[in-house]
Amino acid sequence: MNNDLLTHVRGDSINNDSLCYLSYEIMKQILIRHFETREFIYPISRNSVIVKLECVGKNNCSVNILYWKRSKEHDVKKRTLNNFNHNGSSNYYSTELTFEESVRYLNYCFEIIIGRESLYYSPYGLSKEYPVKVFEYQSTNENDVFEIPSWTKGIVGYHIFVDRFFNGNKDNDPKNVENWNTPPNRINFFGGDIRGIIQKIDYLKDLDVKLICLTPIFLSPSNHKYDISNYFEIDPSFGTIDDLKDLVNLCHKNEMKIILDGVFNHIGYYSFQFQDVINLGPKSKYWDWFYIEGNKIHTENINYECVGDYKWMPKLRYSNEELRKYIRSVGEYWIKETGIDGWRLDVADEVDFTFWQEFRKSIKRHNKNMLLVGETWRDGRDLINGDQMDTIMNYKFRDCVVDYLAKNIIDKEKFKERIEYLLFHYPYQVHHILYNMLGSHDTTRFLTVCNGELNSFKMAIAFQMTFPGMPVVYYGDEIGLEGESDPICRATMKWESMNEDILTFYKKMIQIRNNNKALKYGDFKHFDVDERIYGFIREFEEETIIVLFNNRINGLKTNFYVPSIKSEEHKIQIHIAAKAFRIIKVTKVGGDMRIEIVI
Amino acid sequence: MNNDLLTHVRGDSINNDSLCYLSYEIMKQILIRHFETREFIYPISRNSVIVKLECVGKNNCSVNILYWKRSKEHDVKKRTLNNFNHNGSSNYYSTELTFEESVRYLNYCFEIIIGRESLYYSPYGLSKEYPVKVFEYQSTNENDVFEIPSWTKGIVGYHIFVDRFFNGNKDNDPKNVENWNTPPNRINFFGGDIRGIIQKIDYLKDLDVKLICLTPIFLSPSNHKYDISNYFEIDPSFGTIDDLKDLVNLCHKNEMKIILDGVFNHIGYYSFQFQDVINLGPKSKYWDWFYIEGNKIHTENINYECVGDYKWMPKLRYSNEELRKYIRSVGEYWIKETGIDGWRLDVADEVDFTFWQEFRKSIKRHNKNMLLVGETWRDGRDLINGDQMDTIMNYKFRDCVVDYLAKNIIDKEKFKERIEYLLFHYPYQVHHILYNMLGSHDTTRFLTVCNGELNSFKMAIAFQMTFPGMPVVYYGDEIGLEGESDPICRATMKWESMNEDILTFYKKMIQIRNNNKALKYGDFKHFDVDERIYGFIREFEEETIIVLFNNRINGLKTNFYVPSIKSEEHKIQIHIAAKAFRIIKVTKVGGDMRIEIVI
Repeated sequence: MNNDLLTHVRGDSINNDSLCYLSYEIMKQILIRHFETREFIYPISRNSVIVKLECVGKNNCSVNILYWKRSKEHDVKKRTLNNFNHNGSSNYYSTELTFEESVRYLNYCFEIIIGRESLYYSPYGLSKEYPVKVFEYQSTNENDVFEIPSWTKGIVGYHIFVDRFFNGNKDNDPKNVENWNTPPNRINFFGGDIRGIIQKIDYLKDLDVKLICLTPIFLSPSNHKYDISNYFEIDPSFGTIDDLKDLVNLCHKNEMKIILDGVFNHIGYYSFQFQDVINLGPKSKYWDWFYIEGNKIHTENINYECVGDYKWMPKLRYSNEELRKYIRSVGEYWIKETGIDGWRLDVADEVDFTFWQEFRKSIKRHNKNMLLVGETWRDGRDLINGDQMDTIMNYKFRDCVVDYLAKNIIDKEKFKERIEYLLFHYPYQVHHILYNMLGSHDTTRFLTVCNGELNSFKMAIAFQMTFPGMPVVYYGDEIGLEGESDPICRATMKWESMNEDILTFYKKMIQIRNNNKALKYGDFKHFDVDERIYGFIREFEEETIIVLFNNRINGLKTNFYVPSIKSEEHKIQIHIAAKAFRIIKVTKVGGDMRIEIVI
Repeated sequence: MNNDLLTHVRGDSINNDSLCYLSYEIMKQILIRHFETREFIYPISRNSVIVKLECVGKNNCSVNILYWKRSKEHDVKKRTLNNFNHNGSSNYYSTELTFEESVRYLNYCFEIIIGRESLYYSPYGLSKEYPVKVFEYQSTNENDVFEIPSWTKGIVGYHIFVDRFFNGNKDNDPKNVENWNTPPNRINFFGGDIRGIIQKIDYLKDLDVKLICLTPIFLSPSNHKYDISNYFEIDPSFGTIDDLKDLVNLCHKNEMKIILDGVFNHIGYYSFQFQDVINLGPKSKYWDWFYIEGNKIHTENINYECVGDYKWMPKLRYSNEELRKYIRSVGEYWIKETGIDGWRLDVADEVDFTFWQEFRKSIKRHNKNMLLVGETWRDGRDLINGDQMDTIMNYKFRDCVVDYLAKNIIDKEKFKERIEYLLFHYPYQVHHILYNMLGSHDTTRFLTVCNGELNSFKMAIAFQMTFPGMPVVYYGDEIGLEGESDPICRATMKWESMNEDILTFYKKMIQIRNNNKALKYGDFKHFDVDERIYGFIREFEEETIIVLFNNRINGLKTNFYVPSIKSEEHKIQIHIAAKAFRIIKVTKVGGDMRIEIVI
């Protein structure tokens, strides 16, 4: 046997005895991956598990799981895994196994069917014969189940940079407040505040967003307030705790939720803790809250760790138990005092992960409906295993949309692959609450990314509003604000000069999302109707929504069958303009099928 | 482009623009895997990280990492990754990156060199051009570093089933104690106890084992004591707390450590907690400690969850905070009261993982030198991420050795692959403390697995004692005990009829391990000297140990160069008998090289 070819197939895998020529030819073309770890098999309740498997290199294979209870080897059940493509190929397979009692002592292996060939996949790889050793899943305890707050599923969020949204109370303006229409720089202030948000609640209600996410509001010398001086005090230029309570109540009255921004990786230079360290040196009881070299703080030739090399943000040191308690108490305080619905957690992937485990416990113990959103720009898997965040800011989602719909620098196949990869690698429970944004206070405005091209911009918004997750609008995107990243992307909201075309479009898309359960809660599958079209379907109960994008420079006509139905009666013919999209809704009503062009 | 072939390469990967014919031909033959997650990039101190990459499908490629600090893009450093093969091919690459300050804001990508071809690997896959998007590593906090107790590295352990080791105190024998030489069954007792271990301390010292692991010793009606009636009381037939203190002190005096068996997944039927629930029903304050259906315990038609369907072991329900506190207090109590050195944690992979996070914290807060060994028979990755166990019982290691050295049902290449796979997937820190056993109270005796063939048996012991990790001897294996799994593998220690050949061999191999730092602490690499030979090297400072196995039915002669040196002067010629092994030690002494045949 040629070992070079052998290794080619799969590391730990081939049982030489079981190779016949044909199987071998197939085996060397595919690579299958499944581990008996929480990433690839995990509970969604005590009675059910999700099982995932990746299969690269062979289109249109089908994958079954064979499973049985350890003590009942004669009672083998079989189930076919789904993939992310309704009628094409995909590398990513998964299914849910449900049982009458809690899942325990589950044994399983996979059957991979390629053409007329059938192979088995076990912990030691592919084989033609039934494997001797199979995978095992042991037991599900209640806390092993990753629970997310159910209210968050599929809702639309709105992200506000507080100083720039609306100035509702001129009396609390910071000194030297700028004229509202001045371009922003890194140090100027505009007077936006909590009462401003309160005064604009009808605007938000009219947009029909269901979750408000604020940038930090605690005492801080900066306009962004990511350098917090006191976690227990609202910055007076933003308002008071009573203003916050009013805002929270008003949100709740209007069926909106609201979360605050928790900046716990670092503290502000002017916090009393860091000032105490500057003043008292190692005698300060906060000395160990920081990473300091030497016996005295140097603020010129900085000798303490901070964010980047930015001396105003000294990094907190979570090996200190007092600090851990303190920050947990901050997390709980604002929830208990003001009724907020959770936290966005700044640079979550820079913080001691064992602290997040404690933080989650303390927050969820108080109220398991609190939402925890972790900021990360990277692969966020480490944060969403069930013991830290509920969800993450999905910059990877943004990257995909930028590359395909905004800039068109990757092709459809690659976009599909990246989208499926994203969904596959994040746990199923998180899919419907992924914080899917196209911009933030740390990015170029999305319209600018699109080079001002409205058609691309609209396709991207349509994608965001029809894709699984929690689409979050960065304030101002909906009225056509433009500009490069920080500080320009933090410009004031232009209440007097809105782009009505864009605003109307946003409202329409949010309405479409909010009014269609299939878009809020539905499963996602790619749908290949035509080589020229990127398409997917969302399915929930009796509804199927078909979303099609024509990312080309020419309009086109296409026709296709309603998913899973091959009858001329259910053939849809549709025109899609250049750089445009269409949404079609199919509803089963009794034995009938209603087809509706939504947009 | 043929999409079928494209998908063939790598899911999220190919930048079509960058494909040229030659690269494409290469790309479709390899699959690379690295994620910017804790599994593939993790700190071993605040100043250094381990980076791992898997590359399947192309032998003898070389992999470099290109890395720089986010703010210093001009200052790109390059480092070549190692693999697990000194002079052959491997799918598994890794390296350690060390910095002068704590690792933060690291950007990186990989360069894959295959022949004259050079490709880049980034979050979006392989490309010929330098990637636009690269991987990121954010920050290392102190608790992000997975710390293991350093005393455990490479030491030899000894696992004792207490009732069967030695009866040191006849006064505390259980009723109906059997004659020592009676065959064991599931219910009989033999009188082994703590004083028995104390009396045999010289035997253990003579074996030169450094860690004693006991099966459970707390109050319980069974001989195995995995159904504990009271976690705070030593079973009187085993002795008293003072006996335990004496044993611990004696161990420590003799430079041995000792750990107990923590059975925390379930409790015993006769525990006062479960009895209270039987008696009081839902009014019992322990009702919520269990998973019970209905309002009353039924012990015939069992209506509570238990281990298997074994009613004597009701499963504990870790959503209950009181239970969590209680079990944490058990964990701490025995450490504080008696000075034991840690816990083996029974069926660790069946217990609420968030509880282990708390348990670890509470134990390590008391003393970070405490060892936590989790039992699992599966892929143990989920337990050894740094927040739960220090190490796991490595049944996967046993599986490999059984299949190759004991039963010879897999070939050398597959064995190599499985061994590398094992090391690759477990974090580097854990390598030197993997609890590598060939048998336990739950398996067939290893000599029986070998069908009594002593040569195979000895090769396996030699492998265990020369491989990275913590080799653990199951009591009696060293004197040639045989027999199928439970109950036979739990037979009494035959003090009067030891197989002296086997015992001498064990002692010799343990001596070789204990006297050679390269075997205790050294890096591991496969070493391909000859197609007929399975070989590896262990390297530490100036020592290299070469271990060669001839798993064939004929003896052979071979010759090879000392690793990394190609001079005739350093060519080694050696004979290896059929089913035998050789150990060669190469020591650099000044400019000279000393070559010693160890065995």
